[in-house]
Amino acid sequence: MSEQRELVRHIAHLSHLELLTPRAEESLRFFRDVLGMEEVVRQGQSVYLRGWGQYEQYCLKLTESAQAGIGHTAFRTVSPQALERCAVAIEQSGYGLGWTDGDQGHGRTYAFLDTDGHKFEIYYETEPYQAPPHLRPALKNQPQKYPARGVSVRQLDHVNLLAQQVEPSSRFLQDHLGLRVSEQIVLDNGTTAGSWLYSGQKAYELVYTVDAKNARGRLHHIAFCVDTREDVMRAADVLIEHDLDIEGGPAKHAIQQTIFLYTFEPGGNRIEICSGGYLIFAPDWEPITWTQAERAKGQAWRTPTIASFHTYGTPIVEE
Amino acid sequence: MSEQRELVRHIAHLSHLELLTPRAEESLRFFRDVLGMEEVVRQGQSVYLRGWGQYEQYCLKLTESAQAGIGHTAFRTVSPQALERCAVAIEQSGYGLGWTDGDQGHGRTYAFLDTDGHKFEIYYETEPYQAPPHLRPALKNQPQKYPARGVSVRQLDHVNLLAQQVEPSSRFLQDHLGLRVSEQIVLDNGTTAGSWLYSGQKAYELVYTVDAKNARGRLHHIAFCVDTREDVMRAADVLIEHDLDIEGGPAKHAIQQTIFLYTFEPGGNRIEICSGGYLIFAPDWEPITWTQAERAKGQAWRTPTIASFHTYGTPIVEE
Amino acid sequence: MSEQRELVRHIAHLSHLELLTPRAEESLRFFRDVLGMEEVVRQGQSVYLRGWGQYEQYCLKLTESAQAGIGHTAFRTVSPQALERCAVAIEQSGYGLGWTDGDQGHGRTYAFLDTDGHKFEIYYETEPYQAPPHLRPALKNQPQKYPARGVSVRQLDHVNLLAQQVEPSSRFLQDHLGLRVSEQIVLDNGTTAGSWLYSGQKAYELVYTVDAKNARGRLHHIAFCVDTREDVMRAADVLIEHDLDIEGGPAKHAIQQTIFLYTFEPGGNRIEICSGGYLIFAPDWEPITWTQAERAKGQAWRTPTIASFHTYGTPIVEE
Amino acid sequence: MSEQRELVRHIAHLSHLELLTPRAEESLRFFRDVLGMEEVVRQGQSVYLRGWGQYEQYCLKLTESAQAGIGHTAFRTVSPQALERCAVAIEQSGYGLGWTDGDQGHGRTYAFLDTDGHKFEIYYETEPYQAPPHLRPALKNQPQKYPARGVSVRQLDHVNLLAQQVEPSSRFLQDHLGLRVSEQIVLDNGTTAGSWLYSGQKAYELVYTVDAKNARGRLHHIAFCVDTREDVMRAADVLIEHDLDIEGGPAKHAIQQTIFLYTFEPGGNRIEICSGGYLIFAPDWEPITWTQAERAKGQAWRTPTIASFHTYGTPIVEE
Repeated sequence: MSEQRELVRHIAHLSHLELLTPRAEESLRFFRDVLGMEEVVRQGQSVYLRGWGQYEQYCLKLTESAQAGIGHTAFRTVSPQALERCAVAIEQSGYGLGWTDGDQGHGRTYAFLDTDGHKFEIYYETEPYQAPPHLRPALKNQPQKYPARGVSVRQLDHVNLLAQQVEPSSRFLQDHLGLRVSEQIVLDNGTTAGSWLYSGQKAYELVYTVDAKNARGRLHHIAFCVDTREDVMRAADVLIEHDLDIEGGPAKHAIQQTIFLYTFEPGGNRIEICSGGYLIFAPDWEPITWTQAERAKGQAWRTPTIASFHTYGTPIVEE
Repeated sequence: MSEQRELVRHIAHLSHLELLTPRAEESLRFFRDVLGMEEVVRQGQSVYLRGWGQYEQYCLKLTESAQAGIGHTAFRTVSPQALERCAVAIEQSGYGLGWTDGDQGHGRTYAFLDTDGHKFEIYYETEPYQAPPHLRPALKNQPQKYPARGVSVRQLDHVNLLAQQVEPSSRFLQDHLGLRVSEQIVLDNGTTAGSWLYSGQKAYELVYTVDAKNARGRLHHIAFCVDTREDVMRAADVLIEHDLDIEGGPAKHAIQQTIFLYTFEPGGNRIEICSGGYLIFAPDWEPITWTQAERAKGQAWRTPTIASFHTYGTPIVEE
Repeated sequence: MSEQRELVRHIAHLSHLELLTPRAEESLRFFRDVLGMEEVVRQGQSVYLRGWGQYEQYCLKLTESAQAGIGHTAFRTVSPQALERCAVAIEQSGYGLGWTDGDQGHGRTYAFLDTDGHKFEIYYETEPYQAPPHLRPALKNQPQKYPARGVSVRQLDHVNLLAQQVEPSSRFLQDHLGLRVSEQIVLDNGTTAGSWLYSGQKAYELVYTVDAKNARGRLHHIAFCVDTREDVMRAADVLIEHDLDIEGGPAKHAIQQTIFLYTFEPGGNRIEICSGGYLIFAPDWEPITWTQAERAKGQAWRTPTIASFHTYGTPIVEE
Repeated sequence: MSEQRELVRHIAHLSHLELLTPRAEESLRFFRDVLGMEEVVRQGQSVYLRGWGQYEQYCLKLTESAQAGIGHTAFRTVSPQALERCAVAIEQSGYGLGWTDGDQGHGRTYAFLDTDGHKFEIYYETEPYQAPPHLRPALKNQPQKYPARGVSVRQLDHVNLLAQQVEPSSRFLQDHLGLRVSEQIVLDNGTTAGSWLYSGQKAYELVYTVDAKNARGRLHHIAFCVDTREDVMRAADVLIEHDLDIEGGPAKHAIQQTIFLYTFEPGGNRIEICSGGYLIFAPDWEPITWTQAERAKGQAWRTPTIASFHTYGTPIVEE
């Protein structure tokens, strides 16, 4: 039987990411024309983009930058009180960066770093998306028209950050945001090589995996979801027509059971298109731990993992 | 902007149903051979059955009875404390039936009626499913082997109860279990004709729709989910090979956007096979309200709804 | 055992159709933006359009006209000799219209009428499609890039003509083009209500069904195929986003087992999106005959057929 | 423009294969319980099995043998006359083995070897399958009930033979059976490394690829088809639940564009589950030729091909 402590939930969901690209125009064309996202607004060096299925204004802030990588990761809290609680606790941890008035589409925001140096933002107040006439959906329970253009991703699914040390990074978000571990990889030497974190029933929103280059603050990939595994195969067809490389997949992850494919946007960041997986219903879910030997068996269908998958991240670092 | 009150969540998820059948052997064959469920155990007049994807022991208690209908609907709470909280509140409401030591696979249980007379049970302690050798899955994050037999339903998805008056029934579960409304139908005369309730991110687990026969305590249908909408079409192929009627679908619901089909198990209860829909990420989700005129447009793809769908429920009542 | 006569095959495949529309611009937008077809060329009052999967230049000649309906139906023969053989036989039948030098993309052509007054063309010489740079495919065994725009139909699948009398019309194409019957509906009074004709392994390319308005030369629908039945459901999602009516489906035909949906292009012609069905491998295939009673059971999944499906055709005729 | 010679077609379709296995009982369980085929009859050391979609009695004759490999490959001709024509021509070639009265389910048969030593049989007379009561289908245009058991393969799709020299083997079947080449691999040194052969609109039924072990008469794989690419992914899920290895896939072939996966039956023979591809409509189809460089790019989605795929065949030969 599980522990008798009550759940305290602070985070409602992963809401958006800021992605850095040295090739802003080409990256924009990728997200808009190949992935089928809509441009919401431009501000300064950034373009804000959205998938058709999300209720907030955007899930991707694409920012021109000297190097590829992740700008920040944003979560929405379950309440204003939860936002305050998290901010206080993080402030005390010494990793806080302080409050701002917020960015496009959302209100007062608290920023901080994780122990590996990735920047995060949390907020509660948000301005729900209102589709302009040409993007009004047929069904009132859908935020935006299905675009039927390119991959037509539904929304942001998760982010996978690289960390020099997975365990402290994951622990930090567990302790300060109340995220929980759904699955993890623990090596024979006892170190954690991967940690999948979730806040609600969706089984993961943020993943830490170990940085083979021993760097800090890097990005492994960001993922957008589609509705069916058939859509992931169609995405592969779409990508090759655009002469884009598919690093791996379509195949099925052993961990989380998601159907996936990996490609790269022109700025150099790895992008996943995914579908499926499972929901976590048990309030007393125990993390599923994969050993080094189990991990070595490859993906669910025994698909071998490509070498670059274990080493490449953004920004690119010297050996 | 939404209200500033914090969420209090009591219920983790819909966990199982007791279904009553006057044709126990034939109903069992339907759930086992056509839907692909596994028999877990038999006790008295009941057989306990499960889908391959659930972490608890069973999701269906099939009980021989003079008439078809629903025996009870069970929810697991998020904690022992939540169970106590709910029990106290319901006891005060006068709808409580009291505590039992629990049924197969779960512990101490509080039973009660809703305002329409349907029986409910809530509990926290559960014994997770341990697959016997012949049902051990290839992947450790899956509770049971995928059977590849018949429809191969993953798990219980939701239950749709008929109510003489939808609003008080829905309000009762909102007030006492903390369930929330994701979508609803409000008629021109101001009465609620349908109310979709949820507890976590899954957008509905229990639905009340109005009983056209003005009866009380009846069942409209129970639903089992499959992973893809392709699977729903395959289910249709499977059902016709067993000479079973398909009342409606495969098609796409406007409300909730689920891909669905309806059939009947031999005992007379309506069964839905479904897939898809959406998750609710917003902590301040506002119920989506469909008017009488909007509802009259049919399902998402304009599929007209079959007449029996609006009138048939179990047990069957005289006109 | 089947008859011992050798097959003589004249027709290679249904190649294109001329569709008449009183709303040329809107029809063009439908085929290009909603169905995802490419415009190949314009000539006079006609626009020539293609699906991504066909080896010839186009499959649809869209011609502005006072009324909706079918202009002509074109078949490519298996050889120049077959073209001559067919032309001679048809000339003798009295239904010949004579030779022309051909139309866009194909050579010398023989035109004729069927016994119901629909116009046909047959030819052998064709100029295979050469994709311009922006439409070059990733795979050399594919004629054109997959557009990932709207429904993205692969190619023309079949045409369904209405006939005052099905049997003589079908017999005429069997006798003069060597087409064969794969399935048919024979009413209790002995008349044929539907006849599905094929030339190769694809199980139907042209269908005659009886015209409930007792008119002549009308069109029931033309059909474009997609690769999977999942694509047909996605097509339904795309159509409703364009506020287009879905007359029936997605569902599965009993006859031919095709997954289908029906909609209308702005000119008023009925359009089917379909997938699946079967190939005919048996050289001695015997037509499958459906009785009136079998037909009354509805489609494969027992889906009732909408009333307009039995009465509406183009051009629209007065009662 | 293509040549002006008329097509002469002798072969209707690939009809069945005899597969040799040293582990007859385990192989039988694989085809019946994992692939979902039905046992039709047993004779001597052989069990005859079928997929639900084929009109003849069986597509697989599974024969106990000291070694794995292919027994014979059978084609049905388009007519009795075509059978005689082929037999006469092959007899003259010196590769004939003579006539027999036929095997289970089909009549008089002519046997011969190809230039690489693989045995073939051709026949015309066949006894169509009549489903027993428990396998009667819901739809009269389907030969057998869809079993919904395991992978539930529809029917035999194609056979891939290994040949010491691809070109003469392929040429032999082109010349004597009238098969044609749809796609091929031609190496930089001018030799043909792979040749895909077809008889009707289905784009390949028999493939020769070069034997890396320089042996003769071996088998690369036999393939069974399912209806959708979703089904191929489901097949992968089914195979891993049976602890069977997936050698490659699910992925998409560049050549032929088929969605595929490869596994091994317990006797050691490689088995493909496939779906999709295209039909050949052009009567003057020109073979598509892939160069060594193009072939080195991997499959359609850039999936690298596993090493064993290039070397393993049955029977296994010493290095």
